[in-house]
Amino acid sequence: MKYLSGTLSVLLLLAGPCAAGSESTASEAIAATLRDRATRGDSPAWEFVSEITTRFGPRPAGSAADRAAAEWSAAKLKTLGFQNVQIEEFPLTAWVRGAERVEVLAPSPQPLAAVSLGGAPPTAATGVAGEVAMFGSFAELSAAPAESLAGKIAFVAYDMTRTQDGSGYGAAGPGRRSGPDIAAQRGAVGYLVRSLATGGTRMPHAGATAYVNGRVPLPAFALSEPDADQIERLVKLGEKVRVRLTSGATYVKEARSQNVIGEIPGTDRASDVIVLGAHLDSWDLGTGALDDAAGMAIITAAAKLIGDAPRRPRRTVRVVFYGAEEVSQPSGTTPRGGRTYLANRTAQLSSHVLAGESDFGADRVYAVSLSKGAAESAFGQSLMRVVAPIGVVPSAVPPGEGGSDVEPLVQAGVPAFVLRQDGSKYFDYHHTADDTLDKIDPAALSQNVAAWVSLVWLAADSDVDFRTL
Amino acid sequence: MKYLSGTLSVLLLLAGPCAAGSESTASEAIAATLRDRATRGDSPAWEFVSEITTRFGPRPAGSAADRAAAEWSAAKLKTLGFQNVQIEEFPLTAWVRGAERVEVLAPSPQPLAAVSLGGAPPTAATGVAGEVAMFGSFAELSAAPAESLAGKIAFVAYDMTRTQDGSGYGAAGPGRRSGPDIAAQRGAVGYLVRSLATGGTRMPHAGATAYVNGRVPLPAFALSEPDADQIERLVKLGEKVRVRLTSGATYVKEARSQNVIGEIPGTDRASDVIVLGAHLDSWDLGTGALDDAAGMAIITAAAKLIGDAPRRPRRTVRVVFYGAEEVSQPSGTTPRGGRTYLANRTAQLSSHVLAGESDFGADRVYAVSLSKGAAESAFGQSLMRVVAPIGVVPSAVPPGEGGSDVEPLVQAGVPAFVLRQDGSKYFDYHHTADDTLDKIDPAALSQNVAAWVSLVWLAADSDVDFRTL
Repeated sequence: MKYLSGTLSVLLLLAGPCAAGSESTASEAIAATLRDRATRGDSPAWEFVSEITTRFGPRPAGSAADRAAAEWSAAKLKTLGFQNVQIEEFPLTAWVRGAERVEVLAPSPQPLAAVSLGGAPPTAATGVAGEVAMFGSFAELSAAPAESLAGKIAFVAYDMTRTQDGSGYGAAGPGRRSGPDIAAQRGAVGYLVRSLATGGTRMPHAGATAYVNGRVPLPAFALSEPDADQIERLVKLGEKVRVRLTSGATYVKEARSQNVIGEIPGTDRASDVIVLGAHLDSWDLGTGALDDAAGMAIITAAAKLIGDAPRRPRRTVRVVFYGAEEVSQPSGTTPRGGRTYLANRTAQLSSHVLAGESDFGADRVYAVSLSKGAAESAFGQSLMRVVAPIGVVPSAVPPGEGGSDVEPLVQAGVPAFVLRQDGSKYFDYHHTADDTLDKIDPAALSQNVAAWVSLVWLAADSDVDFRTL
Repeated sequence: MKYLSGTLSVLLLLAGPCAAGSESTASEAIAATLRDRATRGDSPAWEFVSEITTRFGPRPAGSAADRAAAEWSAAKLKTLGFQNVQIEEFPLTAWVRGAERVEVLAPSPQPLAAVSLGGAPPTAATGVAGEVAMFGSFAELSAAPAESLAGKIAFVAYDMTRTQDGSGYGAAGPGRRSGPDIAAQRGAVGYLVRSLATGGTRMPHAGATAYVNGRVPLPAFALSEPDADQIERLVKLGEKVRVRLTSGATYVKEARSQNVIGEIPGTDRASDVIVLGAHLDSWDLGTGALDDAAGMAIITAAAKLIGDAPRRPRRTVRVVFYGAEEVSQPSGTTPRGGRTYLANRTAQLSSHVLAGESDFGADRVYAVSLSKGAAESAFGQSLMRVVAPIGVVPSAVPPGEGGSDVEPLVQAGVPAFVLRQDGSKYFDYHHTADDTLDKIDPAALSQNVAAWVSLVWLAADSDVDFRTL
């Protein structure tokens, strides 16, 4: 076929959609219609994200607001026509921020903008004080000799890189997650990390740190970027910098959180389930608009548009608002929504044909990650035709484990997809008080819904076995 | 002269500088040299603003940091070669922020980002709660009938306009200053105002509110812009919104603050004094980088460059770092730096030939305001030639009272000038925790110093009587 004529190539290309059969063509046309409707903003996405963040504000896992928002969400799903709506509870030990303060004691007293890392223990009311031992990175901290930090407050000043794909956050992660453990092993009495952040505001960025043998080993705080700069400058002025950390954090051992689940049932393949995930809980500082009410809004709107399509798709589309995502532990010792969902459905695992989640803010989708086989299949080709007009390209990055909430499903063998969002500005706001509704661009939110509805419609209206692709 | 030939006009224009005499021409050449040195960043401006904000952080009037920063500033002036350096104390009652909290109680509890207005009284430990009565503006609040706010929390939601000249702040001002008084007269038990702010971050903007008969009539808070939006949305959802305000503010009756003063002495007209003002105190949330360590740095650097010029100017250049600017009251009942300075110099008032202050951040100077006579004088024409290359034009706006710190001098008859800075972004950070060093653009800071050194050199090296211009 090396000398295939140009004319014939063009004919074959033009024949592409038809080659997949007229049913597929009709299904692709519906996908395009849903995409356009979403792009116009004709979906409940904005109203959803506005109302949940306005009514309930922050939704820390296990809090009254978490519960109230879950009940509201379940009612909202019913109002929107979802079926089999349920709230699936699970227990957890909730961590609750108390009064907290980080301050320079010497050379000249001044307050710092900082927040306790999630899970970190309280201090005595008088706090814990020590001289700052500054490190440029987690690797430098790890290289410090045993006992070299005795009585000190370790500070990792690593400045994360702004990236579109969030890889800068990944690189900075150990400084927040494992820093307290490594510092404690070297004798430190407290821990500071420069917020895993871009944007440069005075907002410290919260986030969970790792439990070791059931507890975070040290009082641990994230400094805002300007405050991290401030400490660096003080150290570089040649000063011995003494700081005091005070936290009144508490643990609520008998808390409960929950997943909220609803479905748009399919038709002839209704037992096949496509899971669309997002998480309902948020950090306590902002109203969790970007993280992750936007994700809830996107998947809800996409599923609702499918429910309102001229006809139902073949497979069932299930939205899952996961609970307690933010406070989950990589070690798996903390119950969380994703694991609870899986544990309750081990018998139905094979009916889960595909899973994806939206948990990276509300900026535009720029690429779609599918398995190589799925990308090359008729489904994948159809999808790319539908989403190309809204600026979405095939990603060379595989979907991996799909995200923290669907990860247990994916590890259990469920195929994943990822609609990759532009995260260039995500870490300006992530886990801060500034994660509020006004940071969401309605047009970008609509573009997300358009990308989601395109993919989910095409997958739900097919009989593609993603496990074998 | 109506038919003056084009050629002759050009010749007269070219002759401009020479027409003022060779001494003036030489002085203008020195001004241009100093301007260029400043533009290159060859001045202590950046180091000054970096070091004072890094070492001392926030400098609330009457605090230990205010005092320490004043002592450091006096030492710094001496190091830089200033003469007659002095610290001029005055008493004041300091207001100190305590633990504070603003929260929605109903329809669903959530915390709000808010800060007590300066001077506002504490509440009981249990706070003060009430239903929100929302008004679109201070005028709407003022139109509310007597007793119509009984038991309520008044909220003025007015959204200030972003402007280059700060006029948007002026228009929003009564909502912060007089709102508590007007609300109290109508029976309100607490007061909320949307921050006088642009930028849209979750940082509430502090600021003084007015004392009435020696006290602020109500507990009073500024909400961040997103929180003001949040309350507006809740009200528009049809909900009765109940909030609680809690403040542990205290007053320190025996506090002291101070002005710091230093001079570059003149030569044959050394008894003539040109006052360059800025203020040393700051609000307690940020490190007062833009407001007003930048101003201190700009005037210090301009005066230092003059001190290092090939020869000294004829008149004395005096920098004054005023104390307690932020907590001053328009009514004049609170002592403040500007009034103390004047009260201690009533006998030397006539020797003050000109005064100006830098207290609008660190963005570029775009215009110079002089009296009409000064603008049209040989001095004014020379100045415009020197500053035109750095983007400064003559302002049609008169200098007025020059700014809050030199206002007492100006009201007493001292001529004022204003170097108008671009304030388009100033109210993104003004009076917030985000007023930190990183918000200053070193190039813009240098341009400010260039504008200042140009004007001050030319005025100091002249015998112009600004009172008669």
